[in-house]
Amino acid sequence: MKIIAVEAIPYAIPYTHPLKFASGSVESAEHILIRIWTEDGIVGTADAPPRPYTYGETQISIKNVVEEIFAPQIVGLTVFDRGAIHAIMRRTIHNQVAKGAVDIALWDAAGKYMDMPVHSLLGGWTSSLRVSHMLGFKPAEELLDEAQRFGEEYGITTFKLKVGRRPIDLDIDAVHVLRDGLDDHVEIYLDANRGWTANEALEVLRRTEGTGLTLLEEPCDAKEMMSRRRLVEKAAIPIVGDESVPTAGDASRELLSGGCNAICIKTARSGFTEATEILGLCTGLGVDVTMGNQIDTQVGSLATVTFGAAHEATARRAAELSNFLDMEDDLLAEPLKIVDGRISARPEPGVGAHIDEEKLAKYRSDN
Amino acid sequence: MKIIAVEAIPYAIPYTHPLKFASGSVESAEHILIRIWTEDGIVGTADAPPRPYTYGETQISIKNVVEEIFAPQIVGLTVFDRGAIHAIMRRTIHNQVAKGAVDIALWDAAGKYMDMPVHSLLGGWTSSLRVSHMLGFKPAEELLDEAQRFGEEYGITTFKLKVGRRPIDLDIDAVHVLRDGLDDHVEIYLDANRGWTANEALEVLRRTEGTGLTLLEEPCDAKEMMSRRRLVEKAAIPIVGDESVPTAGDASRELLSGGCNAICIKTARSGFTEATEILGLCTGLGVDVTMGNQIDTQVGSLATVTFGAAHEATARRAAELSNFLDMEDDLLAEPLKIVDGRISARPEPGVGAHIDEEKLAKYRSDN
Repeated sequence: MKIIAVEAIPYAIPYTHPLKFASGSVESAEHILIRIWTEDGIVGTADAPPRPYTYGETQISIKNVVEEIFAPQIVGLTVFDRGAIHAIMRRTIHNQVAKGAVDIALWDAAGKYMDMPVHSLLGGWTSSLRVSHMLGFKPAEELLDEAQRFGEEYGITTFKLKVGRRPIDLDIDAVHVLRDGLDDHVEIYLDANRGWTANEALEVLRRTEGTGLTLLEEPCDAKEMMSRRRLVEKAAIPIVGDESVPTAGDASRELLSGGCNAICIKTARSGFTEATEILGLCTGLGVDVTMGNQIDTQVGSLATVTFGAAHEATARRAAELSNFLDMEDDLLAEPLKIVDGRISARPEPGVGAHIDEEKLAKYRSDN
Repeated sequence: MKIIAVEAIPYAIPYTHPLKFASGSVESAEHILIRIWTEDGIVGTADAPPRPYTYGETQISIKNVVEEIFAPQIVGLTVFDRGAIHAIMRRTIHNQVAKGAVDIALWDAAGKYMDMPVHSLLGGWTSSLRVSHMLGFKPAEELLDEAQRFGEEYGITTFKLKVGRRPIDLDIDAVHVLRDGLDDHVEIYLDANRGWTANEALEVLRRTEGTGLTLLEEPCDAKEMMSRRRLVEKAAIPIVGDESVPTAGDASRELLSGGCNAICIKTARSGFTEATEILGLCTGLGVDVTMGNQIDTQVGSLATVTFGAAHEATARRAAELSNFLDMEDDLLAEPLKIVDGRISARPEPGVGAHIDEEKLAKYRSDN
């Protein structure tokens, strides 16, 4: 099980439509495929989605840190030397997504070596997760149309509404239009991606009382410590830390200092190993978790399902798994399917993310 | 004052001896020189020292983020559009050293445009800083020799002892040997660079009582929140946050949550603009600051002096300024000098870091 090579392959797959951010728009998913090869011919696979505006990493920085800093120290160890490999990676600060992908690739290879699905190795609680679909910035009526369409087409009954706009009335109106237009059993929660101040967030919560919102994620920059603490104390619903809690240590600091009282877990930034630590911290302290999405490919989404379905606490809420629908294509040989509002973990050894080599050859950008 | 180009030039200058880290040793300073050119022919200059084990950045990642993310949005603005440029850079998370260097280069260009030393623009409190010299991992008697030599040769009377080793007796012995061998007026303080646990740090403080240590910097990972808070409460001397507080928001979180009660300011990671914010936070909350060193070149050290000498609170303690003595050469045309234990800010416009173009041509690694 000795590791003989760590590959970091840049690739680009077009989105079905340009995705808009504060800083412009992106036309394609420019990610890194991580492959860890062992002397037995086993390959562990994971997807690394660079997010400079969330974690500070670029496609070039992920490739650089994996190939130049991690790989030379990892090659020669085995895929079961997880402790040693994490100690090596921990020395380099940040670079969460690069580290997360290396970890998932290690788990994938270990599962294949033992002929076991990683989903079972991690806990095997259930075999699938309910899907939550993310609604982006659009006029309120279009959001309602989209939610209704996803309900009919995929059986999805949980929606995360992206908010954080100014004036805040835009978002408040969207909440009311969705609540009025959707069935009562449909769950709606909010993610502001640090777009508001803490005090604006409190105003939004006040003006959406009675709409049954269940969670508010990352309302403001967590570094606004005093006002955010006030928001967490006063809000009727849990305030979820996401970008502010990429590591277990960040999660403990935010929970203990009152910056949030629920945690979003993303395997793309935590891998399976640190996600397990974060989960233990959260169940130990008694706070809710959600499974988040990093605009993941199908390869990445399957990793989320693998981890999320393995544990009771992560399987309780609907998981954010539908972003891959925005991509024209994917490297995953056997496509993910949303059936009755759920996505299943795979029963085969490892994570089960077999790569279509022809597609990889087509989309890779390093040759 | 319109910006027409932002350069990120990689270069490598050998150290006089290999510098040892936990992960190996480095033979040369592989940094990035940032140059911001304006339509008037003015150039603002700053040095960016990549520190993957402290901030997660590499030489390649700094060049990439400055050239591909920042520069396209900055070119066309002026060097006085500092607010807009910081808003642009803030969108990208982390990458503190890349951002810090761009900020210093902006200040340098602005000072030149107004024909004013930046040291005066920032506050002009005094014209020089006392130098603190860092003592690395060596046998205790060699450390004492080095401290005595730096006292005689440079007039330095403040020493930062690098600690954080295991067994902790190594460091405790070093403190006692230094204290016994040096004059009573010589100041000694400690920096563990997260090498211990919080409880090991308390044990060290207990066993070095009576030695007159003045500060303990970054004793453990700040993410060990509960034990670190206990350490901060119990320690007789201030616990300084350094790696844990790269931004103003981090500093406020650590101070308010009890993770430290003094702050190390480094211009290499904060530039002058965020260093000013951090300083305001610290003087407002009433905690001490130190001026730290990021194994800076002379170009970088001059930036530290420029900021540190400008304010009363940063000029009060000796500043860490002597690491450049480990380098065989430097890009600074007129070398820094330590005279009577002090380094002076420069009276000329800008920061005063004129680059020796022949040396830059010799050491740059991109051609």
